[in-house]
Amino acid sequence: MNLIFTDRFRFFMKFYFAFDSEESTRSKCAEITGMTYTQDLEEADVVFFGPKPQFGKKTRILQRLYAGTDDLDLTSIPPGITLLSNAGGYNEPVSETVFALLLSHYKKICKHDSDMHAGIFKKQEVETLFGKKIGIFGFGGIGQQVARTAIALGMEVSAFSRHRTEFPFVKWHSSLESLAASVDILVVCTPLSPETRGIINASLLSRFKGQCIVNIARANIVDQDAMLTYLSQHKDRFYLSDVWWNEPNIKA
Amino acid sequence: MNLIFTDRFRFFMKFYFAFDSEESTRSKCAEITGMTYTQDLEEADVVFFGPKPQFGKKTRILQRLYAGTDDLDLTSIPPGITLLSNAGGYNEPVSETVFALLLSHYKKICKHDSDMHAGIFKKQEVETLFGKKIGIFGFGGIGQQVARTAIALGMEVSAFSRHRTEFPFVKWHSSLESLAASVDILVVCTPLSPETRGIINASLLSRFKGQCIVNIARANIVDQDAMLTYLSQHKDRFYLSDVWWNEPNIKA
Repeated sequence: MNLIFTDRFRFFMKFYFAFDSEESTRSKCAEITGMTYTQDLEEADVVFFGPKPQFGKKTRILQRLYAGTDDLDLTSIPPGITLLSNAGGYNEPVSETVFALLLSHYKKICKHDSDMHAGIFKKQEVETLFGKKIGIFGFGGIGQQVARTAIALGMEVSAFSRHRTEFPFVKWHSSLESLAASVDILVVCTPLSPETRGIINASLLSRFKGQCIVNIARANIVDQDAMLTYLSQHKDRFYLSDVWWNEPNIKA
Repeated sequence: MNLIFTDRFRFFMKFYFAFDSEESTRSKCAEITGMTYTQDLEEADVVFFGPKPQFGKKTRILQRLYAGTDDLDLTSIPPGITLLSNAGGYNEPVSETVFALLLSHYKKICKHDSDMHAGIFKKQEVETLFGKKIGIFGFGGIGQQVARTAIALGMEVSAFSRHRTEFPFVKWHSSLESLAASVDILVVCTPLSPETRGIINASLLSRFKGQCIVNIARANIVDQDAMLTYLSQHKDRFYLSDVWWNEPNIKA
């Protein structure tokens, strides 16, 4: 979490949790910040929130627990209140999800797991990530942690982002199209914004010659209709993700 | 594969495959080694084998494709023939299996996968490997690749092996007992030998306070009865493995 108080008055400040929280979490937060927990929103100087911001008369700071802020209505927050995002707070957990999806896919973990539960021990051809080409779209904290892990696994790593960041062993591309055309695996790690909404569309997919697209960012960076059409036309290609369009109502 | 020929006569040598092989595999092997493929075992200078060694009158070299040699009857091989193991040939693929098992377990990938196939999108508490303590028992090529990956993931890495190998960021233990007592995750990467058979027994398990034991080496390094008893008594502990006792007849 990026809440850094240099304010020496913080020991007199009170915080409120705008989400279900356990006492252990509140104690930990009090210990780290030096502030006191309050149950009364009106008394809170600082409000920690997840899905929705809340504030009382005394509130000066809103600290979000999620990494993204794309879903927030910023106009609802009065000008006197500072809103802090939690960018960077999930670099490692989210990067781990990328490799959880990739490794369980390539090693057929779910198939082996259900086989073993049925009493069947059957060796099957599996593939390695070692030596495969991975392309990272969006190279902030999560993208960089994906790169770090991929390098340790012996993958060939390349990247594209609006903000070019040099990184050891990573080959830089000057466009998303060029990145998508040259990799086995394309990982989407960019924030959702007006520029990235639906950017993985039919035209982009037509350039992708690899095996898997991984999206651990936001569902709407990928055009749903284009992806579903693409997958129905390419039975050997895979879309791995922990986000979904219109979640949690995924049938809609 | 560790087949390195400096022999300038290799261009006159013939190789035989003592297992089902596709033409593309044989061509690749011919290209790399400079040798010629033969279908006739009696003509073969070099025999590549998987489960069982075979040899003809001219055979000088047996090259195993598996990493281990624990299951071979070495007395069946005449003294004039050099047997080459394939140690190191699977460092990356096997190390990947360690993280495929760990990440799919901690991220509940199989549960999420079956939920999604049933049309359910449900967030669940998952854990990170980041910050967890991993202990590596056996520190050859596979153990070292496990260490390299674990370091990139931000894990605390420690190890024990009969042969002490210094490695950046890895804390060394002087016994398996001390390693097992201090980690969240214990990974078995040691060869099966008379010394390691059943070494993960009831006494060792009683010292383990962590969450998961991962065995990607050989099933019989772990005492089956001890492990099954341990798991039935500790419902919050997990055994993750791609090997099984008496495989493929796992019911026996």
